[in-house]
Amino acid sequence: MLTTYISIGPAPIKDGQCTFTVWAPACSSVKVIVKTSPDHPWPMEKGEGGYWTVTIDQVTPGMEYWYQLDDNLLRPDPASHWQPTGVHGASAVPDTSFNWTDTDWQGIELVDMILYELHTGVFTEAGNFLGVISKLDHLQTLGITAIELMPIAQFPGHHNWGYDGVFPFAIHNEYGTAAHLKELVNAAHQRGIAVILDVVYNHAGPEGNYLPDFGPYFTDKYKLFWGGAVNFDGAGCDGVRNFFIQNALMWLNEFHIDGLRVDAVHAIFDSSALHFMEELTAQVRLLEQRVQRRKILIAEFDLNNPRYITPVAQGGYGMDAQWVDEFHHALHSLITGEQTGYYEDFGTMEDLARSLQDSYVYTGQYSKHRNRHFGRVPANTAYNQFIAFVQNHDQVGNRLLGDRLTATLSPEALKLAAATLMLSPHVPLLFMGEEYGEKNPFLYFTSHSDEELIATLCEGRRKEFAVFNWEGEVPNPQEEAIFNQSKISWRIDEVPGLFRFYKYLIALRKNRPALHNFRRGNAVRNIRIQNRVLQ
Amino acid sequence: MLTTYISIGPAPIKDGQCTFTVWAPACSSVKVIVKTSPDHPWPMEKGEGGYWTVTIDQVTPGMEYWYQLDDNLLRPDPASHWQPTGVHGASAVPDTSFNWTDTDWQGIELVDMILYELHTGVFTEAGNFLGVISKLDHLQTLGITAIELMPIAQFPGHHNWGYDGVFPFAIHNEYGTAAHLKELVNAAHQRGIAVILDVVYNHAGPEGNYLPDFGPYFTDKYKLFWGGAVNFDGAGCDGVRNFFIQNALMWLNEFHIDGLRVDAVHAIFDSSALHFMEELTAQVRLLEQRVQRRKILIAEFDLNNPRYITPVAQGGYGMDAQWVDEFHHALHSLITGEQTGYYEDFGTMEDLARSLQDSYVYTGQYSKHRNRHFGRVPANTAYNQFIAFVQNHDQVGNRLLGDRLTATLSPEALKLAAATLMLSPHVPLLFMGEEYGEKNPFLYFTSHSDEELIATLCEGRRKEFAVFNWEGEVPNPQEEAIFNQSKISWRIDEVPGLFRFYKYLIALRKNRPALHNFRRGNAVRNIRIQNRVLQ
Repeated sequence: MLTTYISIGPAPIKDGQCTFTVWAPACSSVKVIVKTSPDHPWPMEKGEGGYWTVTIDQVTPGMEYWYQLDDNLLRPDPASHWQPTGVHGASAVPDTSFNWTDTDWQGIELVDMILYELHTGVFTEAGNFLGVISKLDHLQTLGITAIELMPIAQFPGHHNWGYDGVFPFAIHNEYGTAAHLKELVNAAHQRGIAVILDVVYNHAGPEGNYLPDFGPYFTDKYKLFWGGAVNFDGAGCDGVRNFFIQNALMWLNEFHIDGLRVDAVHAIFDSSALHFMEELTAQVRLLEQRVQRRKILIAEFDLNNPRYITPVAQGGYGMDAQWVDEFHHALHSLITGEQTGYYEDFGTMEDLARSLQDSYVYTGQYSKHRNRHFGRVPANTAYNQFIAFVQNHDQVGNRLLGDRLTATLSPEALKLAAATLMLSPHVPLLFMGEEYGEKNPFLYFTSHSDEELIATLCEGRRKEFAVFNWEGEVPNPQEEAIFNQSKISWRIDEVPGLFRFYKYLIALRKNRPALHNFRRGNAVRNIRIQNRVLQ
Repeated sequence: MLTTYISIGPAPIKDGQCTFTVWAPACSSVKVIVKTSPDHPWPMEKGEGGYWTVTIDQVTPGMEYWYQLDDNLLRPDPASHWQPTGVHGASAVPDTSFNWTDTDWQGIELVDMILYELHTGVFTEAGNFLGVISKLDHLQTLGITAIELMPIAQFPGHHNWGYDGVFPFAIHNEYGTAAHLKELVNAAHQRGIAVILDVVYNHAGPEGNYLPDFGPYFTDKYKLFWGGAVNFDGAGCDGVRNFFIQNALMWLNEFHIDGLRVDAVHAIFDSSALHFMEELTAQVRLLEQRVQRRKILIAEFDLNNPRYITPVAQGGYGMDAQWVDEFHHALHSLITGEQTGYYEDFGTMEDLARSLQDSYVYTGQYSKHRNRHFGRVPANTAYNQFIAFVQNHDQVGNRLLGDRLTATLSPEALKLAAATLMLSPHVPLLFMGEEYGEKNPFLYFTSHSDEELIATLCEGRRKEFAVFNWEGEVPNPQEEAIFNQSKISWRIDEVPGLFRFYKYLIALRKNRPALHNFRRGNAVRNIRIQNRVLQ
């Protein structure tokens, strides 16, 4: 590959020694300040490319430290693996020991995946990894083959969807330790369940982001909906690219994570000849070979551009799969009759048929909502490169009241949606609780401490919702009650028979190759539509 | 293709009828105001996609008109073909009649191209197309097979390089009429000389740009060095894309232009699944088939990304060729010893050897000037997809004093540069006057009327030059003397023997297939370097 990859963060070596490496090209001096002995700073040495290093003796797990920049600012480590007191506190050296028992695990292929998206904080009453472990038997009974964890990187406050994370290498301190996450992955693998992790490389959260003090992580060349774009192609971008590549490799290697769902890949602007996603994918392929385990890269993606999931040999970036929101939109609009916001582009049986055939609905047609012709036929892609869903955190949580389909649909309609998903040629993803008809909402919740930011939160949501013409007040995401309402109830009999129906559909899909290994050439090409029935 | 292409501007039909079409989605009413009868406005009818049309009787060439927007603003036509009194005046209906005599002309292939870049305003004393025609015999004698006209689109004032154009469909009023341009193209074709036109699709000039009154031509999603980026991918972009595609097709079809040099393609930001350059190329290929003439698309391009010139079947955008500045930088730095600005990345024999072998110099190495690893090996490209030069308008004109190589190099060194270019495997491009060692500078000249803009001109140039550490005052581009100094002298014996040497080299290149049809596989792979000699 083109760049030399450099480990960053704390790297325990042996005999209590630990090497600290930080990319801080903007600084003229960097020191490690150990919290218990602040009067004995450890000056770091500047190497090539703006990387500073120092090796410290007598380091034990849990040792807290800061970086002191230019003999002035005290900052947590951008590549901190542990923030015991949250985003504004000191970083800590992690305990990396763990006895893995998943030696025979080889990962699983997309064709065999039945995904289940969950939010660690509201999935169980405990709201942590141990809670998730306690539900693995349930998921195994259901037939799930992969869980997808919403982002777990350290974010500000107690509760957050995770997309406000500011320490991509650190596990949110309230979800558990590194060992707890490893225990979860290990336990999942014991049950034949893969673990996909949602990672955010396109932006940093609005509170506790100290990255700009270290180097040119951000650029004003591109404008994002939610703030400054990450500098993937300007001066100094080598260090930024390395930062995120190291992050991906850490999860996939050290934590045995089976794949990444990369958030909002369309917001990763990169005009480089080697696009960041192509570079990341190449590194992940090398890791796959080294560890002999399948590692999956999934893009969350809004551009209907197959380049991202096309093999490199055919001019693509080589990612494995992408989320296909348009399958959701077509089905949701058809089944609920909703026609506001982006649903104005959907609502007919033809739209659903098109997604079942071409994965994308818009492959070049005029989109009213986008006010432009949009998309392209995903030629040379396979159905199992597309992750489909009838609900997910965004499609539920970004509704005014966070209401699931259970709020509006009859049990029969819920079953119809379930069957359409599970029998679709795409890889299905369920959203926690969907399998039994959870009625609790999934609302947007935060617990920021920055007052200025808090003041703008509701206003931001209100603007985002304007196109949908929803009636009612925007719930205040900062309220603890909003978080608590979003916890799933585990009332498995909420919708009688639904859980059994999902189990049946999953088993049916798994046992019939024709139902999970569609090829475009094999698929029914001539989907006939009559009234509201696909034949 | 994906979108429906709609003709814009005035389209004379027959019997004095002319249909006017304008894309003005931002307007609630549009009228044509004929200058001689302003009290009889012609209301236009709004059709799909924000296009307004009306057909007017008794229209004769030269008839001047405005569009009146929302019963208020009077504006020239964005797709005006003629601005008789400049950028702020009324538009006029062109005379489209011309008797072409180039029936047998089929265009020429890149492999046979020896390009000659010229600026119509300073190429001859006349400063217009008739002047250029008067020099075609000279160019034929020299052996040139294609002239490349710097942008001729209507710009503000009398003098301008052309990159400040604001009416892409109109010929600068002081260069001549549409008929004069056709006469030039026709006369060139008679002599076996193709005509390439430099077109600017990445930005509009800073004065006389009325496009925003009509529709969303620009976006703030991307930031350009020289102002607002063109909206190639946001809401309403269909009309913008159509505008520029129609423009390209007009030059290539109506004016028999043989190819376009598309300015700063790296500044055309487009996240669409179908990139604008790919869409444009596809349209040009259809035109090629229809008219049975070769049409060449050349990118000016700074990203060392072969995707733009890779065939569509291999995941590229399908353009024919690109400028390769790095060949210039490697040679210039080596031969002059300059090491400031972007020349800091060059200066060794190895750099030149690398360009002779891989076309790009930076194919993934660290670039000090860009402060990042940069570029990619242009696999699956041919040498004749790269346009090389030892001088061009930018490399001369963007020096503090606009000095050519003649200012610093001995005649022997000039010959060495000439031979390196003409014997390189790339397609050579000469800059007007280079063939005889012109000593007059080519300076940056403008004649804006906007006082605020004028005040910032020198400051902008000063900032641009800062990295080069050049000594001296920035010449004022508004001074008439600067323009006059930039006229070429036609002192053919300026550097004794040089003109004859260029003629010899061109003939040599043309007559030896091995010298103009290199394939990468055939090229000397093992370029040996000893001291300052390539063996």
